[in-house]
Amino acid sequence: MTKIILGKNQYGKAEVRVVRVTRDTDRHEIEDLNVTSQLRGDLDSAHFEGNNEHVVPTDTQKNTVYAFAKDGVGSPEEFLLRLGRHFTGEFDWITGGRWEAEQYTWQRIQGDAGEHDHSFVRGGTETRTSVVQIDGDDTVVIAGLQDLKVLKSTQSGFVGYPKDKYTTLAETEDRILATSVTAKWRYNRTDIDFNEVFADVRRLLLAGFSRNYSYALQHTLKEMAEAVLEAHPEIDEIRFSTPNSHHFVVDLSPFGLENPNEVFYAADRPYGLIEASFLREGADTDHWSWDGIAGFC
Amino acid sequence: MTKIILGKNQYGKAEVRVVRVTRDTDRHEIEDLNVTSQLRGDLDSAHFEGNNEHVVPTDTQKNTVYAFAKDGVGSPEEFLLRLGRHFTGEFDWITGGRWEAEQYTWQRIQGDAGEHDHSFVRGGTETRTSVVQIDGDDTVVIAGLQDLKVLKSTQSGFVGYPKDKYTTLAETEDRILATSVTAKWRYNRTDIDFNEVFADVRRLLLAGFSRNYSYALQHTLKEMAEAVLEAHPEIDEIRFSTPNSHHFVVDLSPFGLENPNEVFYAADRPYGLIEASFLREGADTDHWSWDGIAGFC
Amino acid sequence: MTKIILGKNQYGKAEVRVVRVTRDTDRHEIEDLNVTSQLRGDLDSAHFEGNNEHVVPTDTQKNTVYAFAKDGVGSPEEFLLRLGRHFTGEFDWITGGRWEAEQYTWQRIQGDAGEHDHSFVRGGTETRTSVVQIDGDDTVVIAGLQDLKVLKSTQSGFVGYPKDKYTTLAETEDRILATSVTAKWRYNRTDIDFNEVFADVRRLLLAGFSRNYSYALQHTLKEMAEAVLEAHPEIDEIRFSTPNSHHFVVDLSPFGLENPNEVFYAADRPYGLIEASFLREGADTDHWSWDGIAGFC
Amino acid sequence: MTKIILGKNQYGKAEVRVVRVTRDTDRHEIEDLNVTSQLRGDLDSAHFEGNNEHVVPTDTQKNTVYAFAKDGVGSPEEFLLRLGRHFTGEFDWITGGRWEAEQYTWQRIQGDAGEHDHSFVRGGTETRTSVVQIDGDDTVVIAGLQDLKVLKSTQSGFVGYPKDKYTTLAETEDRILATSVTAKWRYNRTDIDFNEVFADVRRLLLAGFSRNYSYALQHTLKEMAEAVLEAHPEIDEIRFSTPNSHHFVVDLSPFGLENPNEVFYAADRPYGLIEASFLREGADTDHWSWDGIAGFC
Repeated sequence: MTKIILGKNQYGKAEVRVVRVTRDTDRHEIEDLNVTSQLRGDLDSAHFEGNNEHVVPTDTQKNTVYAFAKDGVGSPEEFLLRLGRHFTGEFDWITGGRWEAEQYTWQRIQGDAGEHDHSFVRGGTETRTSVVQIDGDDTVVIAGLQDLKVLKSTQSGFVGYPKDKYTTLAETEDRILATSVTAKWRYNRTDIDFNEVFADVRRLLLAGFSRNYSYALQHTLKEMAEAVLEAHPEIDEIRFSTPNSHHFVVDLSPFGLENPNEVFYAADRPYGLIEASFLREGADTDHWSWDGIAGFC
Repeated sequence: MTKIILGKNQYGKAEVRVVRVTRDTDRHEIEDLNVTSQLRGDLDSAHFEGNNEHVVPTDTQKNTVYAFAKDGVGSPEEFLLRLGRHFTGEFDWITGGRWEAEQYTWQRIQGDAGEHDHSFVRGGTETRTSVVQIDGDDTVVIAGLQDLKVLKSTQSGFVGYPKDKYTTLAETEDRILATSVTAKWRYNRTDIDFNEVFADVRRLLLAGFSRNYSYALQHTLKEMAEAVLEAHPEIDEIRFSTPNSHHFVVDLSPFGLENPNEVFYAADRPYGLIEASFLREGADTDHWSWDGIAGFC
Repeated sequence: MTKIILGKNQYGKAEVRVVRVTRDTDRHEIEDLNVTSQLRGDLDSAHFEGNNEHVVPTDTQKNTVYAFAKDGVGSPEEFLLRLGRHFTGEFDWITGGRWEAEQYTWQRIQGDAGEHDHSFVRGGTETRTSVVQIDGDDTVVIAGLQDLKVLKSTQSGFVGYPKDKYTTLAETEDRILATSVTAKWRYNRTDIDFNEVFADVRRLLLAGFSRNYSYALQHTLKEMAEAVLEAHPEIDEIRFSTPNSHHFVVDLSPFGLENPNEVFYAADRPYGLIEASFLREGADTDHWSWDGIAGFC
Repeated sequence: MTKIILGKNQYGKAEVRVVRVTRDTDRHEIEDLNVTSQLRGDLDSAHFEGNNEHVVPTDTQKNTVYAFAKDGVGSPEEFLLRLGRHFTGEFDWITGGRWEAEQYTWQRIQGDAGEHDHSFVRGGTETRTSVVQIDGDDTVVIAGLQDLKVLKSTQSGFVGYPKDKYTTLAETEDRILATSVTAKWRYNRTDIDFNEVFADVRRLLLAGFSRNYSYALQHTLKEMAEAVLEAHPEIDEIRFSTPNSHHFVVDLSPFGLENPNEVFYAADRPYGLIEASFLREGADTDHWSWDGIAGFC
């Protein structure tokens, strides 16, 4: 009989949608999250013997998310740190895990009399993300954002690439560069004003995207990473997964029209896909905390 | 042999993604649309005889969208009007059709030196929509928006409803009211500054949503409709399709905690679905131009 | 002050996911539905006065779906008929409504010992749909299916169409024809073995799609409609909404290769969109029961 | 100035949709794939200097996919192996990469005269997946499937789990167990009849799911893994990512009805999420080839 062993594993409750309203005054605040909790530890008997004595129910994990929200959220990172410390502290055999959140932005509705006290409109297409990874005594926070759609209508080109028998692409020094940024950055500390740093990293990513001529999306990612790593010593690494969202110049010549980069077809598939990590010199290029973070190389 | 006839029909090219960059100066403008063109007319022989002499190819419709974009977009409504007039004017047997567009919002990236000239970030979760319907000599413009997510954290209740043997819902005078607004409004003219009116209707919808206590989503839709119809005599009717996006108060009592409307579970399915049309008195309650507009009662 | 009136409206609970297991014997049966209930009637005071005395809660509608499932489903059409008759019978002011269901297919897992008694695997990509419309004394059943993906790799062409200055499409007598069929057919009676007829209509649609050379998707829809209307006198009308899912022959000549319709690029957007209704001669070409059925012209 | 280095990175063309028709005889065959090609190697100068001399264009990668499809597909694994060997052989500085494919199933339409020669209908909800990873001289093939939806209506329970102050879940010895299986298995060789093994693994996964009483989804995954690893010595490891798709028994007691596991509410979110790897004893529990495979722990 084949001897089988259990490899990496984790389990928990995914996508717990929690909305926290702070209503101490008439001016309400709202925090809107999608939380996933996953535990790791000694779980052999659950898999091999059908013995659940180590299986903290995923339902209990969900309840804990809601109970902890009663004390407020603050930032997704702080909220996940509290959850992670709770589970690893409460149950001996749980030695680590991954806690993850998406946070959605709500802005106050502007009325005749300024910002409304308790009425909100969803803002922005992008989602803020955070992950807390715990492994024994190690705790790492990875913050991020996804689906931040950006486009520059000029100051982008692509030339000087190798050609082979399958190359038909023409070089260009003026094209649209568009992408939907998914970025995650790894903090080297956990005592951070996470909301403030998030806002600044978002600002720096946009600035890095806009600032210079782009020789390729790879090159522009470096510009974005550099802006972030230089300004934030508490960040050791930033990873990107960015589609090159192709905008093709439409050939209008059959209709007797010129098209000097004015009319574009925005294609769905296929798309370029550029993934890269940038690190502060000396940082670990293969840090354990990236394990199991979807979609990054 | 059963005699079969052709009923209502239309055909065309759907979801033509066109991005128009206006670059007459260094400060570029960008218009980003998803256009659908559908033609109606004498098409019996195509269906019954496999004779395509009346079938203007959907590929030609696509080409026409791109060629017309060369002359600029202006507003989605004006762009669709140009398309519709072209097709019904060019081909004798095409007596009408439906032209539809979604428009996506791009905002300038704010840099150190103010707004960037040619770098943009996608803004807002909602999409602007427009439809032009032509039937012979009649032309109607229907503008709208979809997925405008709004939430009020108080000043909403639901009481006084009928109870039967299947009723378990408890009355409440304080709850979250949240929805994702899809609204479409029908203009009674076509000579309108469509961009300006759109911005004002969006503002009025948000104001109508926030202003008063909500006795039910139906009641709040009336507030929103009223604000729009009173301010805009060029609009005869507005229709809504709005989910009641339930936010349930989580029962924290098993954990010894109170929950005075602070911690909510945002549910996916099922959801309430409230659809209603509001009209200026005397307007046609069954206007032909709504035919074939998805998702409205 | 502008006088505003309420036009068409309906409200209810959408996407109630109900799974009914029949377990009278060891061989279980499973019925898996997504049910939407929407009521129409005298609802002015709800919209204008915030008076909910006529608003049967959407929560009650949901409860009713679950309670009725206790007595079994049978077919989605019979289940919706029971729901519709209940609501219009129980509440004087509810004079009609729309009840809708999607049904998902589960097949028994084949084991070593034949079909398993209580283990199932989801089958097919398409979804069965049904709608019951009630308006006063009139009750109409519309059955259907959506996302039935079909493809023929030859025996399809497109020639003989009109050309204008925007036409670049080349004629072809051999191409791939692919679509994802959404079809809805209107019954002229309600005393039907709905499951049996559904299975036969699905069979006829596939047969109609495959049988003959296709001169255009319009022409093939007629073949499909004809097969259905000839075999089923209880069906008065069938409507289609079908994308023309383009498969473009890839130009391999730059690589020194021929491509006699062997290698295709399956495009996402734009796509052709062909919508048509076919009726038994004498049937109503503008039947009220199609009102508010999404996505049909 | 902060010194920044490039960490892990890869780039290429994602989601190249290729449909290959084999038409040597009247009985056509169809292979329908979604291919992603990503290259790794010496790409520092592209990121840091905007020098593209090592950047084989993603457009060239796409062209190569189509050109290679001219010679047939065979199996997605063999097709990806050919692509991977080409890119790493053709360009000195490309030392590895990841090639990935989804394959969609088409079945022949059954007509009056048996299986149709060139008309097909899409079958099954699940998608076959494959990944080829190359790193220098190492080549690994990982096959898989995703979205294989399975359900057992009894013979599943969950008892004996630890309780804490946040536990409210009741133990049960009879519940529905449902999931949507995503599984990936790693081969220890590349000279395999991939299509045949795929079909058998799928069969074994279904058998393993159905066979025994389930003490938890973790336990059932072990049953499924065991069936595969015992029958297929060419597989060293299998990984699962499986939601626990909750089906809650509806409380019908307010309506005076019993509900002995007959009427269920199928919930969307949150859901349990169980992820685990099972290996043949002695196999590497942290094999490099899993790096960058989304969604696995």
